[in-house]
Order: sequence, then structure tokens, then C-alpha cells
Amino acid sequence: MQELKVQPECIPCFFRQVVIALKDSPLENKNKLKIMQECLQEVSYQQLERTPAHATTFVHRRVRELLGYDPFLEKKKKFNQIALGLYPELKKIIASSNEPLRTAVRLAIAGNVIDFGIFAEIDIEGELQKALSVDMPFEEYEALEEAIIRNNEILYLLDNAGEIVFDRLLIEFLQEQNRKVIAVVKGAPVINDATMEDAIEVGLTEVCKVVDNGSDGIGTILEWCSESFRETFSEASLIISKGQGNFETLSTAEKNIFFLFQVKCEVVAAFIGVRKGERLLIGTNTLREHLYGVPQVK
Amino acid sequence: MQELKVQPECIPCFFRQVVIALKDSPLENKNKLKIMQECLQEVSYQQLERTPAHATTFVHRRVRELLGYDPFLEKKKKFNQIALGLYPELKKIIASSNEPLRTAVRLAIAGNVIDFGIFAEIDIEGELQKALSVDMPFEEYEALEEAIIRNNEILYLLDNAGEIVFDRLLIEFLQEQNRKVIAVVKGAPVINDATMEDAIEVGLTEVCKVVDNGSDGIGTILEWCSESFRETFSEASLIISKGQGNFETLSTAEKNIFFLFQVKCEVVAAFIGVRKGERLLIGTNTLREHLYGVPQVK
Repeated sequence: MQELKVQPECIPCFFRQVVIALKDSPLENKNKLKIMQECLQEVSYQQLERTPAHATTFVHRRVRELLGYDPFLEKKKKFNQIALGLYPELKKIIASSNEPLRTAVRLAIAGNVIDFGIFAEIDIEGELQKALSVDMPFEEYEALEEAIIRNNEILYLLDNAGEIVFDRLLIEFLQEQNRKVIAVVKGAPVINDATMEDAIEVGLTEVCKVVDNGSDGIGTILEWCSESFRETFSEASLIISKGQGNFETLSTAEKNIFFLFQVKCEVVAAFIGVRKGERLLIGTNTLREHLYGVPQVK
Repeated sequence: MQELKVQPECIPCFFRQVVIALKDSPLENKNKLKIMQECLQEVSYQQLERTPAHATTFVHRRVRELLGYDPFLEKKKKFNQIALGLYPELKKIIASSNEPLRTAVRLAIAGNVIDFGIFAEIDIEGELQKALSVDMPFEEYEALEEAIIRNNEILYLLDNAGEIVFDRLLIEFLQEQNRKVIAVVKGAPVINDATMEDAIEVGLTEVCKVVDNGSDGIGTILEWCSESFRETFSEASLIISKGQGNFETLSTAEKNIFFLFQVKCEVVAAFIGVRKGERLLIGTNTLREHLYGVPQVK
């Protein structure tokens, strides 16, 4: 089993991410270009034998170091507030659903799809309706449902600020089913990924135990995580994993993981064999058989 | 008057171009990534105080050097043949037009718009109809017509292989009006820009005098061109310039130039103040007033 490796197509994307990180900076273009050139240097010396998430972690570290601040801090606060504004409506949708777990799962994936940065321009009602009705190529809903029934504890790997309000709703539902959820945030800022500050901001810390993974790695790069998180991870019998970064970095992990995310680029789409933009709910068992030809354990 | 400078958004685009250059190479991804890393180094050390065309020239040089061959050679031959297949139909369209000059100019711009790489999938009839009817924000047709009447000699800066078949048709029309055209190709291969080989392939050398500019620079970077070309350029009283690269590198040239091209990126679109994808026919006089506030010489 081989994890997804950096592809040539990833390189321009790395620098699109730097452009986004620098977009709202008051720096002159000349100085933005200098930061970009430092990042070019950074990537030019990397081994590039791991996942794109791994490689871009170094890039985003360099950007924060050179800027001297976290360029996503304000955006994350804004995204959390936007998503919190949707909370009452989302809560109602789940409460009135015939299949509240499926609805909560689909909404949690919607949280990964919605770009809170363009929120003012998007049709949120349409987006939520789409989330509830759109086809998903691997909707392993029954397998997830069974796994939840069989496991009292669930480790829940969060992804972005804003999105975590949608996760809070799924976590609330799981806790109402007497499941104990431990939610995981990043140990330090990286892109718009949720940290403890974000978890507190959206009230998640009042809903369940929240721990940080001790790392600023994109996704979950276990060797960079704290020992305490690695223990928690290793002991988990069921993991719900949000977002493409966690998918990239955990696709070969020998754990019982359900990945909930939108496929955001052609490279990951080609790796899985689906189309860019698809929403997935796929467990490691099926994933392994599908990607690596490893037979499913029944 | 300041020429367009490299913007942060250009950096990812430079590397998208490298991905395209390497796409059909039989190299393993690992080796493609090594070439990309060499290009990252290249750009990380550049001054980046000139046009994007200038900066990418170094990138494409490095790619050819590391590959050991011109990655666009076969594509250019293919594009020439595809475009030659359209020649009879294009000739008829111009011959039957009430405004043959305008039609030939619009088709020459269409040659800059059509992506011959996806030719099999495009609706060429629809594309040609669109070329003849679409709105163009600066269609300085009358000014061009007058300039052609006033000048017996026209220097015609070509852009891409394939596209040059469309240019041949405009050049044929100009020569039928007893205008002497000198067409200019690149002095050495760079991306899919036309060289003397391409001009011969599409029969352009039988239609008019064709000279090369002595350079592998993207666009027309005068200080890199041969002395003989610089003389020709300096003596020209009317220049028709094809493509965005020539626009980038000649927007501040103190010459009587009409630029015919499609705006292919947001950076150039923002520089001119039009939308990406627009087709332009704009002369230096209007351009200067519009971009730099330099009054028009009437």
C-alpha cells in the first residue's frame, strides 16, 4: 500500500496556496514575490517522496515565518462566525430528518464543501439541499452506522475552521446516541485548519472532549504529532476523519477510519478514481480493497 | 509608462507551464519532479522585475536544457497540420466577406484563441462564427485600416504554430492590397511559438518575406534579439503584433503597433482592465492613453 505522492501537477497548486495566503497581506507585490521565492527555494530542496499535504506543510510554515504572523487567523474567526449563524437551521434539519445520522454525516461533508470565504455570494439553501440529495460514489453509510453501533468511543479528526460547526452537529448527534467522542484539532496554526481556539469559539469544547494533535502538519502526519496524541490515535477503535489532508496522510493507516471529504483536486481524484468535486464517505476497508487490492475483512 | 511586471499570481502559472511542457515526456514522475525543482531554483533566484514573458523564458530554457530536446516540436507540427486543414475554408470565408480586412483580422485573432491541442473536441464552425461576431472591447478596426492605407510596409510579429496559418490568410490579404509584409518568427524554439521551420511548413515563406528575431525570448524582448532584427523593428512604421507575449513585452514600445490577441490570464486582464478571455485589437496610441494616461497623437 502506497500513500499518494506529490505529482508534478501539485507544484503549481502549492504556489496557488501561497498566493492565497498572501492575498490579504498589506505587503507590496515586490515583497510578496520575495516570500514566494523563499518558498520556491523551500520546495526545490525537498525530497517530495511523501504526500502533497506533507510537502505543503513546509511551505505554509515558511510563509508564516516570513510574514511573522498567521495569515489565516482573521479568516478562521470569520468562517467560524458565518458557520455559527447557520447552526440553528442545521440543527433543525437534523432534528426533523427521518435518517438523522445520514443527514448529519452529509451536512458534515457539506461543511467541507462550502467555501466560507465566498459565503456572501453562495446560495446556502441550495447548497444544503444539494448536500442532502447529491449522489456520492462511495456512500458507506451502512458500514459507518454499524461501526458506530459497535464502538462506544469515536476519535473525530477535524479539518477547517467554519466546517467544525457542521462537525459539532454530527458530534452532538453521536453523543446523544451515548457515544463518547474525542475531537482532534491541530496543535498549531496551519492554513485554515481548526485549532483549540476555534474549537472554543464554536462551543465544541462544551460538547465533547477536544484534544490537539501537537502538530502543525497538514492532515495527520503521525510522526510529527505529540506522543499523547499518537497514543490516543493508536487506541482508537473507530475514527471519523474530515477533509482531504487527513485522507492523504492516513489512506494507508492500519486503522478503522471513515473518511468524510470532498475531493478538491485532480491529483486526489485520479488517485481514488473518482471525479474532482465528488463527496465521499468511505471506510478504510473498502478504500484498501479499491485502492490497493487488499481484500476486505468481513 | 511601466510594462506589466510579474505578479504573485504568475508564479503558480509558470509551473503550470512546466507541467504542460513535461506532460508528454516519457520520464517517470520522480524525474519530472526533479526538473520542476530545477525550475523552482531558477525562478527563486530571478530578479522578477520585468514581464512574466521575460521570467518564463528562463524557465522554458531550463526545461529544454534538462530534457535535452524541445518538448513542443511534435505538437507544433501537429498544430500546423490541423490549421492547414482549415485553410481552404478560411480562405472562402474571407473571399466572400463584405469586409474582408475585418474578417481576416478577426480570424487572425481566432487563431490565437483556438487551442489546437484540444482541436478534436472543439466545434470549429461554432468557433469561427464566434470569432466573426463576438464583441471586442477595443476593436480599433478603423484605426488599423487607416494605418494600413498610410503604410506600404508592415512588420508582422507572429506568435504560435498553428495560429500562423490564420496569420498567413491576413498577410495574403494585405499583400493583395499591395502592402509588403515582413513576418517575424522566433530565432529558436520556445513553447509552441513559430520558428522558421513552422513558417516553411505552412507555406508562409512562399507568401511573404519571413525573418527570425534571433531570440528564444517569449514575446519580443528587444535586447535579446539579433541586431539585424532590431534594425528591422526600429525602421518599421507599422507593426501588427500577435499574442499576449508580444503584448507584454511591447506594451511600452514607442512604435506604431496594433496588438491582436486574446487575454489569456487574470493578470494581463487586470493590467488592461478587461476580462480574461476577451479578444483585443488595440493600437499603441489608444493603449498608451488607456494604460498610462499618455494623450493620443491625432
